[in-house]
Amino acid sequence: MMSKITILRAVVEGLTYLVAFLTKVLGSEKGRPHQQKSAEEEANERFGLSWRVAVEANNVCPWRKVPLQCYQHLQNYMCAGQYERDLNLVVDNILIYASQIPLSPDGMDAWILDVDDTCISNFSYYEKRRFGCDPFDSTIFKEWIMEGKCPANPAVRSLFKSLKERGFKLFLLTGRDQATLSTITSNNLHSQGFVGYQRLILRSPEYKGQSAVKYKSAIRKEIEREGYRIWGNVGDQWSDLQGECLGKRTFKLPNPMYFIS
Amino acid sequence: MMSKITILRAVVEGLTYLVAFLTKVLGSEKGRPHQQKSAEEEANERFGLSWRVAVEANNVCPWRKVPLQCYQHLQNYMCAGQYERDLNLVVDNILIYASQIPLSPDGMDAWILDVDDTCISNFSYYEKRRFGCDPFDSTIFKEWIMEGKCPANPAVRSLFKSLKERGFKLFLLTGRDQATLSTITSNNLHSQGFVGYQRLILRSPEYKGQSAVKYKSAIRKEIEREGYRIWGNVGDQWSDLQGECLGKRTFKLPNPMYFIS
Repeated sequence: MMSKITILRAVVEGLTYLVAFLTKVLGSEKGRPHQQKSAEEEANERFGLSWRVAVEANNVCPWRKVPLQCYQHLQNYMCAGQYERDLNLVVDNILIYASQIPLSPDGMDAWILDVDDTCISNFSYYEKRRFGCDPFDSTIFKEWIMEGKCPANPAVRSLFKSLKERGFKLFLLTGRDQATLSTITSNNLHSQGFVGYQRLILRSPEYKGQSAVKYKSAIRKEIEREGYRIWGNVGDQWSDLQGECLGKRTFKLPNPMYFIS
Repeated sequence: MMSKITILRAVVEGLTYLVAFLTKVLGSEKGRPHQQKSAEEEANERFGLSWRVAVEANNVCPWRKVPLQCYQHLQNYMCAGQYERDLNLVVDNILIYASQIPLSPDGMDAWILDVDDTCISNFSYYEKRRFGCDPFDSTIFKEWIMEGKCPANPAVRSLFKSLKERGFKLFLLTGRDQATLSTITSNNLHSQGFVGYQRLILRSPEYKGQSAVKYKSAIRKEIEREGYRIWGNVGDQWSDLQGECLGKRTFKLPNPMYFIS
């Protein structure tokens, strides 16, 4: 017959084991990706999602800053893989479209690509500005640009190479200032693998102060006047994709962090 | 001194209580909104989200069916409130834009609204077609339309009323067949509170077989030829918002369930 001490010891051991086991189970429950959020966090997440979709579809009236309640959503969106997934899906569709285009042997089949947050990324700057929830700081942004270290968007670099191999003439069209940023921009693009494009076009003095829509329309018009056929036009801003001589098909790359009119 | 029986009974009762308590805690963990998903479900959710955003931004090449892996995402999107939230945010932005328009006393300030899945909803049909994952069935769809029971999108009905009160002339422009669906459509709209519009325009025989872009462009051109100024153009399809005489500003309402070219 067991003594009371023995029984109690067995019970205590059993309970310790049970508690340890259940703590582990509960711990893994709590540590899983979907942690319980507060009602406010849930509401912000839902709003952030609606806001991001509205921005991508060009439904939001001109805005200067991302609403602060979108901060957590955008941080998660930009840092946890969904931004890259969204970008990749758009690039997949661009490649499908491009593969169906009958190229002419005259070498005049053209494609327009924007530069900032299309070919190369300003994530490093925007990460420090709460993904656009903080106001744009032109001084800090210019310092960042002047480092010439914007990394490529890998999906867009791969698109660039595919389009070039296919035979399209690639025009990189940016609102960056020609006088001050021409060298740093072409070096940055080169170091990131954007090699072999037809032309890099920066904003020359005559377009200073004009909206992106006006400036980029004028440049595309000039490209068409030279005899090029613009089959595709890719940018992260709707102002890249509005106005005149848009090209036969436009594609909007994701960017919920800022708006350029 | 307690007997062994008494000790064991106390221990069993204690354990029972502990297990019940922990079961409850674990149960509530499991019952909370974010249930643990399988890796496949997580991947489908992420893909569904990318796909939906790409559709809303008009980045997906013409498609006939929603990819099956988006089914769960779309079911959740359409049924759990996010669709309405997205719609409401777009309508909020339309109202901001509309409030800034200086109306003329000549009564020629116009607005274009699409009908299906803009003013009134075909959710009931698409719910039975796995939210667009099943192929479109024109017979069943026509039966549904002929019931004349499409409910209003409440946010759009409220937009309709605001625009009308503001003084805009509202043109409802639909690809529905004029010969067979004119009466049922105007009755359906009337019963859902769409009263006092300037004109309901259905597809007359001369536009049969034309793309929505061509047909709707031709109608908008005619409206402008009559002297109207189209300030806004609202639809759930990009083909409502492409082509000619688009209006000064277009707004894309969410619809990830089907694509009309």
